[in-house]
Amino acid sequence: MRMSQFFLPTLKETPAEAQVVSHQLMLRAGMIRQTSAGIYAWLPLGWKVLQKVAQIVREEQDRAGAQEMLMPTIQSAELWRQSGRYEAYGKEMLRIKDRHDREMLYGPTNEEMITDIFKTFVRSYKDLPKNLYHIQWKFRDEIRPRFGLMRGREFLMKDNYSFDLDVEGAKLSYRKMFLAYLRTFARMGIKAIPMRADTGPIGGDLSHEFIILAETGESQVFCEKRWLDLDVLADDPGYDSDLKDFFAKYTSLYAATEEMHDAATAPAELETARGIEVGHIFYFGTKYSAPMGAVVTGPDGNPVTVEMGSYGIGVSRVVAAIIEASHDSNGIIWPDPVAPFHVAVVNLKADDAECARVSEEVYAKLQAAGVDVLLDDRNERPGAKFADMDLIGIPWQLTIGPRGLKNGVVELKRRATGEKQELPVEAALAKVTG
Amino acid sequence: MRMSQFFLPTLKETPAEAQVVSHQLMLRAGMIRQTSAGIYAWLPLGWKVLQKVAQIVREEQDRAGAQEMLMPTIQSAELWRQSGRYEAYGKEMLRIKDRHDREMLYGPTNEEMITDIFKTFVRSYKDLPKNLYHIQWKFRDEIRPRFGLMRGREFLMKDNYSFDLDVEGAKLSYRKMFLAYLRTFARMGIKAIPMRADTGPIGGDLSHEFIILAETGESQVFCEKRWLDLDVLADDPGYDSDLKDFFAKYTSLYAATEEMHDAATAPAELETARGIEVGHIFYFGTKYSAPMGAVVTGPDGNPVTVEMGSYGIGVSRVVAAIIEASHDSNGIIWPDPVAPFHVAVVNLKADDAECARVSEEVYAKLQAAGVDVLLDDRNERPGAKFADMDLIGIPWQLTIGPRGLKNGVVELKRRATGEKQELPVEAALAKVTG
Repeated sequence: MRMSQFFLPTLKETPAEAQVVSHQLMLRAGMIRQTSAGIYAWLPLGWKVLQKVAQIVREEQDRAGAQEMLMPTIQSAELWRQSGRYEAYGKEMLRIKDRHDREMLYGPTNEEMITDIFKTFVRSYKDLPKNLYHIQWKFRDEIRPRFGLMRGREFLMKDNYSFDLDVEGAKLSYRKMFLAYLRTFARMGIKAIPMRADTGPIGGDLSHEFIILAETGESQVFCEKRWLDLDVLADDPGYDSDLKDFFAKYTSLYAATEEMHDAATAPAELETARGIEVGHIFYFGTKYSAPMGAVVTGPDGNPVTVEMGSYGIGVSRVVAAIIEASHDSNGIIWPDPVAPFHVAVVNLKADDAECARVSEEVYAKLQAAGVDVLLDDRNERPGAKFADMDLIGIPWQLTIGPRGLKNGVVELKRRATGEKQELPVEAALAKVTG
Repeated sequence: MRMSQFFLPTLKETPAEAQVVSHQLMLRAGMIRQTSAGIYAWLPLGWKVLQKVAQIVREEQDRAGAQEMLMPTIQSAELWRQSGRYEAYGKEMLRIKDRHDREMLYGPTNEEMITDIFKTFVRSYKDLPKNLYHIQWKFRDEIRPRFGLMRGREFLMKDNYSFDLDVEGAKLSYRKMFLAYLRTFARMGIKAIPMRADTGPIGGDLSHEFIILAETGESQVFCEKRWLDLDVLADDPGYDSDLKDFFAKYTSLYAATEEMHDAATAPAELETARGIEVGHIFYFGTKYSAPMGAVVTGPDGNPVTVEMGSYGIGVSRVVAAIIEASHDSNGIIWPDPVAPFHVAVVNLKADDAECARVSEEVYAKLQAAGVDVLLDDRNERPGAKFADMDLIGIPWQLTIGPRGLKNGVVELKRRATGEKQELPVEAALAKVTG
């Protein structure tokens, strides 16, 4: 993409309405635009990041054996009356009447709808287990939407639902998602720690919140220091195993949110930090399957009410949470796997023929190599260009200027460390594609 | 994907509520499930097709220089008052009050919102032209939703919006989208004919509907026979040209919907057919930019109200329209580019060791080659397996049975033609991957 054509409205000043750093930086980096209270449009740069985050979520769900589908945003109130949640959900549910005065709602979650779909089609234990997911916009009518994407009203969530014949199967499904979530966040270049959690309005017996540590986090959390040294991608035993040892290892270390923290039982060597919730998994047995009649015929011919769990990742919230965990005073520092572009090629002097020639050549080579590259071909001061690239947080900045070219070099800067090197063009290309 | 694990609830009987063939086949093929009147969940098979269709739309938009973003589904009524459409839109707009009694709506289209975003950030002619698109769910509260996806309430649409400094620029943007739409449908393996159209509630001076011909189409259309012989992918002059000759050629042939048809001026050699609208493009000048104040500074320093166009493809509707245009009495016949799977490997005798061994080997080889493959490993009668594969319309069926294996062959069937061949495994693999 060429900066001269890209719709990237960066701002020099921090907008007064933004209180938290992710909201400030998303506005300044031209990633989002508020369209109503707590509702945002994703501008092209933000949309690219959201897609990358969603794609990692998708790949790890698929890898864990979950199947993607898509449920609609608008649901009928009738379904929610079956589970008893229609009245219970309160004012955060956006309630709608259609032109025929039928009561509808904008889905805040999908336990009822998926249970209804499941029971329509699945009748036999032979069709179990099943795990179905979708990545869909949800709405929660917050009384005071704030903090940008962190507490918005319309938000993107990956939610999935597991169906098993018995408790043992349901717990295996739970452990698979526990691993999938750890892998998902690790692949994004961030550490999310599962903490035992209250089950809240979803209900159930077993639940973990996945918390990203960030100084600017919304709540206090406690965990053993050893947590920070674990490497889940190295520890991954694969989904064909029963995952018991893995689960035991990863739940044996102390990790708790403030509500669940118990100083009496906590170990002495404790990290106290701020955290942001980015995922939540639940095993809740027959809480929805029983009232809604999700029953299959078991191996012995008798009816069995299926055991369920549900699992959520706040995909749009993850984007903000990554920024909270990874930024400096100049702007965002994207981890490579979720960066909107991998390399920014900065032409220092757009009206210099040689700078333009080399910049275009480097841009074309990176595109041909399948690298997501942004070319700053604008006629702007060097300082403005560097400030923009630091602000939008591209992992590699490859700067091409007249002085360097005379010496046969370009400058390569790593955003995360600030480290700069002068290198011949080919060496710089090898470094960013290697 | 293994059929034994896949959530694919096919139906033997045609559901009584479905009147048109696409609705019948989507239900029978386990692609969708109605969750409320005119609102559908996309089950995994349907979701795969919807994603493939959306991806082709996306690639052709990107290729034409449009930039992807994402606007939210819920909009404020205030924006629509600025354009004067809030009252005008009628009962098809789903109107919502949030917990603070603010008037909101579920977006049926996005002219107002994109114009507001544009005017916030774009102030100079130097930033033009711009073309922004998104692929987002829309809602139209149809009084009588029917025909499944053809006239549903919640539907997926790609809509984009072009902004230009002058009429000449806006018309070039229009021609680019005209080409992009022709390419988009051609790449899906279907022929969509642009027909001069009434501009309706969007307004404007210049407009084409893109119509797929199908015997079961919703309305009557008229076009010259020569239209059917045009090959847009061969004729494509590229987006760096002014596209005038191309546009002239493709609009010189007579093509009109029933409302626009004029027998007096139509040529004698006319094809009368049924058609389905899948896209609609509009040039409407300053209809939204003037009342909403989307003004930039021109090259001479004077303010210029920008010239706009909008362009829509009914992505979910396209899935149904393709089925209307491509099916037989046994089921769907997917064109290769949008098929949910490219090949179905049918193991005729799941409990035969040699059949299982070869089937697994073929399945693994196709997966390794990056082919989207479905393995029918179920313990079902051969007749039931063939019926399911014909119903869900996979382009290639590769059948592995004990009799064939004794002779060193498998059977390869092309869904579209019914043509069958017996071939050695390697030859069959070469054919489906070639």
